[in-house]
Amino acid sequence: MVERVFKSFADVANQLCEGYQNHSALQGQSRIFPNRKHVIQSLEDMQGILLPGYYSDEIHHAVSLIERLGSLQWSLSRQLHDSVPHDCPQGKCETFFCEVFQHAFSDAIQLIEKLPAIREILNTDVQAAFRGDPAAKNYDEIILSYPGILAIMTHRIAHEIFKLGYHMIARIMSEHAHSLTGIDIHPGATIGRYFFIDHGTGVVIGETCVIGDNVKVYQGVTLGALSFQRDMDGNIIRDSKKRHPTIEDDVTIYSGATILGGDTVIGRGSVIGGNVWLTKSVPPGSKVITKPEIQMFTSEI
Amino acid sequence: MVERVFKSFADVANQLCEGYQNHSALQGQSRIFPNRKHVIQSLEDMQGILLPGYYSDEIHHAVSLIERLGSLQWSLSRQLHDSVPHDCPQGKCETFFCEVFQHAFSDAIQLIEKLPAIREILNTDVQAAFRGDPAAKNYDEIILSYPGILAIMTHRIAHEIFKLGYHMIARIMSEHAHSLTGIDIHPGATIGRYFFIDHGTGVVIGETCVIGDNVKVYQGVTLGALSFQRDMDGNIIRDSKKRHPTIEDDVTIYSGATILGGDTVIGRGSVIGGNVWLTKSVPPGSKVITKPEIQMFTSEI
Amino acid sequence: MVERVFKSFADVANQLCEGYQNHSALQGQSRIFPNRKHVIQSLEDMQGILLPGYYSDEIHHAVSLIERLGSLQWSLSRQLHDSVPHDCPQGKCETFFCEVFQHAFSDAIQLIEKLPAIREILNTDVQAAFRGDPAAKNYDEIILSYPGILAIMTHRIAHEIFKLGYHMIARIMSEHAHSLTGIDIHPGATIGRYFFIDHGTGVVIGETCVIGDNVKVYQGVTLGALSFQRDMDGNIIRDSKKRHPTIEDDVTIYSGATILGGDTVIGRGSVIGGNVWLTKSVPPGSKVITKPEIQMFTSEI
Amino acid sequence: MVERVFKSFADVANQLCEGYQNHSALQGQSRIFPNRKHVIQSLEDMQGILLPGYYSDEIHHAVSLIERLGSLQWSLSRQLHDSVPHDCPQGKCETFFCEVFQHAFSDAIQLIEKLPAIREILNTDVQAAFRGDPAAKNYDEIILSYPGILAIMTHRIAHEIFKLGYHMIARIMSEHAHSLTGIDIHPGATIGRYFFIDHGTGVVIGETCVIGDNVKVYQGVTLGALSFQRDMDGNIIRDSKKRHPTIEDDVTIYSGATILGGDTVIGRGSVIGGNVWLTKSVPPGSKVITKPEIQMFTSEI
Amino acid sequence: MVERVFKSFADVANQLCEGYQNHSALQGQSRIFPNRKHVIQSLEDMQGILLPGYYSDEIHHAVSLIERLGSLQWSLSRQLHDSVPHDCPQGKCETFFCEVFQHAFSDAIQLIEKLPAIREILNTDVQAAFRGDPAAKNYDEIILSYPGILAIMTHRIAHEIFKLGYHMIARIMSEHAHSLTGIDIHPGATIGRYFFIDHGTGVVIGETCVIGDNVKVYQGVTLGALSFQRDMDGNIIRDSKKRHPTIEDDVTIYSGATILGGDTVIGRGSVIGGNVWLTKSVPPGSKVITKPEIQMFTSEI
Amino acid sequence: MVERVFKSFADVANQLCEGYQNHSALQGQSRIFPNRKHVIQSLEDMQGILLPGYYSDEIHHAVSLIERLGSLQWSLSRQLHDSVPHDCPQGKCETFFCEVFQHAFSDAIQLIEKLPAIREILNTDVQAAFRGDPAAKNYDEIILSYPGILAIMTHRIAHEIFKLGYHMIARIMSEHAHSLTGIDIHPGATIGRYFFIDHGTGVVIGETCVIGDNVKVYQGVTLGALSFQRDMDGNIIRDSKKRHPTIEDDVTIYSGATILGGDTVIGRGSVIGGNVWLTKSVPPGSKVITKPEIQMFTSEI
Repeated sequence: MVERVFKSFADVANQLCEGYQNHSALQGQSRIFPNRKHVIQSLEDMQGILLPGYYSDEIHHAVSLIERLGSLQWSLSRQLHDSVPHDCPQGKCETFFCEVFQHAFSDAIQLIEKLPAIREILNTDVQAAFRGDPAAKNYDEIILSYPGILAIMTHRIAHEIFKLGYHMIARIMSEHAHSLTGIDIHPGATIGRYFFIDHGTGVVIGETCVIGDNVKVYQGVTLGALSFQRDMDGNIIRDSKKRHPTIEDDVTIYSGATILGGDTVIGRGSVIGGNVWLTKSVPPGSKVITKPEIQMFTSEI
Repeated sequence: MVERVFKSFADVANQLCEGYQNHSALQGQSRIFPNRKHVIQSLEDMQGILLPGYYSDEIHHAVSLIERLGSLQWSLSRQLHDSVPHDCPQGKCETFFCEVFQHAFSDAIQLIEKLPAIREILNTDVQAAFRGDPAAKNYDEIILSYPGILAIMTHRIAHEIFKLGYHMIARIMSEHAHSLTGIDIHPGATIGRYFFIDHGTGVVIGETCVIGDNVKVYQGVTLGALSFQRDMDGNIIRDSKKRHPTIEDDVTIYSGATILGGDTVIGRGSVIGGNVWLTKSVPPGSKVITKPEIQMFTSEI
Repeated sequence: MVERVFKSFADVANQLCEGYQNHSALQGQSRIFPNRKHVIQSLEDMQGILLPGYYSDEIHHAVSLIERLGSLQWSLSRQLHDSVPHDCPQGKCETFFCEVFQHAFSDAIQLIEKLPAIREILNTDVQAAFRGDPAAKNYDEIILSYPGILAIMTHRIAHEIFKLGYHMIARIMSEHAHSLTGIDIHPGATIGRYFFIDHGTGVVIGETCVIGDNVKVYQGVTLGALSFQRDMDGNIIRDSKKRHPTIEDDVTIYSGATILGGDTVIGRGSVIGGNVWLTKSVPPGSKVITKPEIQMFTSEI
Repeated sequence: MVERVFKSFADVANQLCEGYQNHSALQGQSRIFPNRKHVIQSLEDMQGILLPGYYSDEIHHAVSLIERLGSLQWSLSRQLHDSVPHDCPQGKCETFFCEVFQHAFSDAIQLIEKLPAIREILNTDVQAAFRGDPAAKNYDEIILSYPGILAIMTHRIAHEIFKLGYHMIARIMSEHAHSLTGIDIHPGATIGRYFFIDHGTGVVIGETCVIGDNVKVYQGVTLGALSFQRDMDGNIIRDSKKRHPTIEDDVTIYSGATILGGDTVIGRGSVIGGNVWLTKSVPPGSKVITKPEIQMFTSEI
Repeated sequence: MVERVFKSFADVANQLCEGYQNHSALQGQSRIFPNRKHVIQSLEDMQGILLPGYYSDEIHHAVSLIERLGSLQWSLSRQLHDSVPHDCPQGKCETFFCEVFQHAFSDAIQLIEKLPAIREILNTDVQAAFRGDPAAKNYDEIILSYPGILAIMTHRIAHEIFKLGYHMIARIMSEHAHSLTGIDIHPGATIGRYFFIDHGTGVVIGETCVIGDNVKVYQGVTLGALSFQRDMDGNIIRDSKKRHPTIEDDVTIYSGATILGGDTVIGRGSVIGGNVWLTKSVPPGSKVITKPEIQMFTSEI
Repeated sequence: MVERVFKSFADVANQLCEGYQNHSALQGQSRIFPNRKHVIQSLEDMQGILLPGYYSDEIHHAVSLIERLGSLQWSLSRQLHDSVPHDCPQGKCETFFCEVFQHAFSDAIQLIEKLPAIREILNTDVQAAFRGDPAAKNYDEIILSYPGILAIMTHRIAHEIFKLGYHMIARIMSEHAHSLTGIDIHPGATIGRYFFIDHGTGVVIGETCVIGDNVKVYQGVTLGALSFQRDMDGNIIRDSKKRHPTIEDDVTIYSGATILGGDTVIGRGSVIGGNVWLTKSVPPGSKVITKPEIQMFTSEI
């Protein structure tokens, strides 16, 4: 056994395996963490339950639906449990007495009980898209082809999970929607009814945003933080202070606009123009536009 | 049978099933709608036919190709049919006499007959990419790794479907490309030969855009509408008025530029600089740049 | 056999098959090119080796790991070989004497030997994300849900492949990450340790960028080229000149900023504000912000 | 639309769809029936729970196991329900009040509660195989490669389901094992501990067989019925009379033997030779062999 | 590049590739042959069309059914074509003018037009199973779990293909059913209505068998040839002479019976007992049983 | 958390998990055992290499073939290693120094080096089938649809693995072929060239059989052991004594024949008739047939 490649790969495997054991950032704080594929599967199951036919092949009847809810509850329980770093000794058998799992089980039930309400508010979002886009021909087209619907449906699920305290699960779900749509909504954000994002690529909505009813947002809009507070050692302070803006009812924000800061409030009914950069509040009914100086040269071609 | 979870889930299933029957936006205007997975499968079949080896495993010969065209035609017929809301009673057997299906069958043939022409114009797009990007080493690299090629190939297919009147199918396809590339081209847009989008994330091209030959567009460019017309009740008017700009031949539009309005014409050979915001026409040969005021502070670190 | 559809499709197949043989851009410079699905599979295998549990189901031990390294090496060899246009006659059997394959075999070994070092630098990137985002609760959340981690991990792999000279393979990998994250990093870019991209949609980092340690970048940032040099015939000059900026250590670049040009250097410790457009160097410790004129109208609503 | 093939297929589809509605044997007694793929999936889930590592990839710990049990219970409930022809109106929403489902739910729990006992008896079967075959090197080889183990494991599950009254589900499972092993055990058969079938192809064990402990059976053995009772109209009487033989403890039955009749009892410790045809009882300790007349001709070759 | 393993494998690959080119039995008579996976897929498609719900997930309505028939016709055309060795130059484009393909196209239509009739006769087979087995509780159980139904359904399809002259395709299908059920029916066999095979493992029914209506066959029954005719060189004569027996209406053949010879006729209404070996005809109404001498020894245990 | 079902399942999981730890037959002698799915995957890879086009989609050229050989060698190494019970501490990282793995690596190379020779002998088997069956139309039909070819190809691979000492791997492979074909050949059996099994269901060929060239075997044939030797405690003696018969060149054995015993030799050129039961040797050129007494009753029907 003197193949160079064998020796070399044994070496590489050795280094990697040693690394897997180390307490680096790549495997530090916990031994238990959720399985991303399973979390996304659960998300897709919920989407299929909320919008059968559109987001799943099966049109549910009562028995098929209760079967799916029941299975969903168990897999959610597992993932919620696995997302909480704790001393539950995996691989050993006392886990049934694990309080983390019992809470996860109970929280999964709560989540499922919220699905009818999520479907109701989703109904308002689809109506808002129809009202807001002249290119939309009917509701079906919106549900089947608007990325904003996928983003807000995912957010409405992830937000409930976030409120139950399972931040990692919620973030995996919201990032999945981000990957598919280019719309990055932190699951902590509070968003009202009739919410519509058009096109959406590049939209960022921060963790502590509060958004009212009937708000419309275009591609490239950022609702972000101004800057972070750091402690004496330069470490970021991870408190729950409001860092992101408040958007009141009936506001429209055009593409590329940036609104920053936890104290910034966009008053009811305002319109924020494209590419505007705002770090201060504006009163209700404001129209804010930016007037960049443009230089034009015309030449023969 | 007294499990609380059973009762609770029976309740949830009950509410959801009732909701499925209601005429909410979530299932309103039609009982028949296309299956997104199948529509995307047909799109990918066409991509594999247009660029075998690159977008499919099989290198076609005549018999394998005609088999694929034939199968494609039947699945397209089904999807086109399913995208048209009508009274054809699914689940009953009179559908063969359904005129919608007969038109769909015929339109699917027309679409397939356009594939050779689509391949020819795609050829110009790949050449445009090669000419336009110094980082491109050869055509294969462009076909295999440039998101702009996937976006424009999908558009050229979806646009033909849109012209045949199947808007929902076309939108599902264009949104699929949007999800993969971050490039959002409405299937209604008219785009000339030798079209090149570099990087592309955040590009939005509206439904009534008209774009000439040899146009080059960078990431974050919006070709959008100024505002919508509403009727007396505040509802958007869904007419077919031109709402998006016209870009003449040989124009280059740099990253982040926004050009709005149905009457806005960018004259032949113009160059629109990065982040420019334009709502008015510019004559042929124009160079338009924006000169934002920059403030710089330098401090010790 | 007189079906119209048969005749029509035979015609279409005929035209397409003829086209496949032509030396158009769609099949021009080479007969051999890599299989995108297999390249992405190899990329995902490497991600699973670097971050087992997070990016793969299996937690590796030594024997399972060396098996994966060994299989990976052979599939990489094949793909590297296939990406190099050359006269190796596929379908005939002299290929073992093919020097391209022998180099590919050897280069695949080199690449695998770099995996432990890639894992180490990835460790710094995860730490940078934790330090840089107050919303991050722990390392696991970052690895499982931050698109910036997927983008930089892919880049660190693709960059090594790029340095070995296999540009097409490297580009397929970087474009795959671009599709999933909206972050477009050219595999030629040189990036230091502790690199953090937050949100990330719309980020573009060009081929000849040089980025120092501890740099932080937000969504929508472009590090691009000013313009290309063309030869007398108007063809782009594909030399290896530096066309993209240099970012020194400890720089932060906020969302939407654009920095262009191969001679542009952002000095150590600088902060570039949101939406800034820079084509000139700034000294160490600079703070650069843009002050667009804002117009606000407030009206009753 | 005048394609001959279109017309012809419309005709075929018409005839088939009409046929689907008719009350032929192909869709007669019930509108609800179980989904074979899902039933087999549940069977495989149970096999994976009984023999983790051998029949599933995952080695279970407590949390992963309880998740699987929970999901299994819901899918079993659905299938058990669907296998009972009844008036529960599928597609409508009153099904939660469906007593069939409530019983199925409860029966699925009972079934799962029997899994530990099934594992214990399976333990005896594996030991019997080891004791009975000199070619067996260790227990792992038996579990991984003896068809008799798959057959008896499936039977022990299907038999419990049969006893709960869900004959169709039990039969789908036993037939799945028959397809994989060539061993056809009716789920109604009662089989003792330490049961071993070697090779097994062609074994048939009838519904009302009663088999003791420590019985060994070779390929091609039939334990069948003599003949059926018919009523005055010539229809088979489907009562629950014992139609198949009783095999007492410690019996060995060699390949190709046929034992028929509900009153036939093979006494304890008997050995039944290859190809024997028996329709009468034999006392304990019998050795039964068949002595066919053999004719031999030898010729030069 | 001096790895021993590389050299050794290059050698192995070399030898294998050379072998692939040789005119051995492993690649001799034709360059074109059908793809087994696709043939089996087509078979399963037809099973799903014949017994929707049981053998496919979808319950067809007219539009979904005509789509499936249409796609099926194209893939069948391809496979039928590929099964006929001929000079059609694969990889070149003149194949549309290939007469083999045109016949295949036309024959595929004929086959599909026979599906309603196949469904009707299958209806009789299911009824025969119900009448013939007291353990059967209802038709659904028979369709979902009796291997004899899968075997006869496959035969009825394969037989039509055999009659159209595509022997290889028919044999791939019949062998697929053989693999799943242990029942080996040559697609050339002619079989009447109300045919029932119980258990079935080991049943062999030869190419030139003729079987009447209402025949019942048990496991292990062989309907075979006596011996083959050879020419002067000792090669088998592959003529179409009848080599296998004729079974008239209303015959029952019990397990393990063997009936051989092309001139052997089992008269109407006969019953052939288990393990009987017959090479001569028997008149209508015969009961044939075998009486092996049995020796029994009883000993204490 | 007081759900009854939760408590009950926790209990079940508890019992099962405890059981998993016990040293029962279900997890006794070793902690490491091979993964059946991966073993079968490797078998199928080898079948695809031996018969490309028939048993794999890809037609290999040299580069694709060496890639497959290389990947195969690593996965085989892993499985061979995992099949040997030893103290190599899985989950820890010293395994590269594991001698078992080093031997497995080396043995996997040896196995691959035998593939060309296996292909050559397989060539004789296909010819034997063509010569032996008048229903065979050409070689392609035999390769694509004769179960005997799959069985003997698998045996020729498994036999080489058996000779290298990896019995469990060999048995998993042979049992896989048994499941698909009903033909059960122990990997220890020695089988000459030009071997043909027709139909095959129910064939059993024991571990120590020695079979010459040009032997033909029909369905239901058993080449088995007479009885086992046991030690004083009644345990089977697992020595390597020859327990199964020797079949010399040019022998034909018809369906259902049983030949038993390690000293039984069927002389060259003999023909053993259907259903014959033989436990003694017969000289070369013998014809052995069985003449069961048949009783026939004819009655009116």
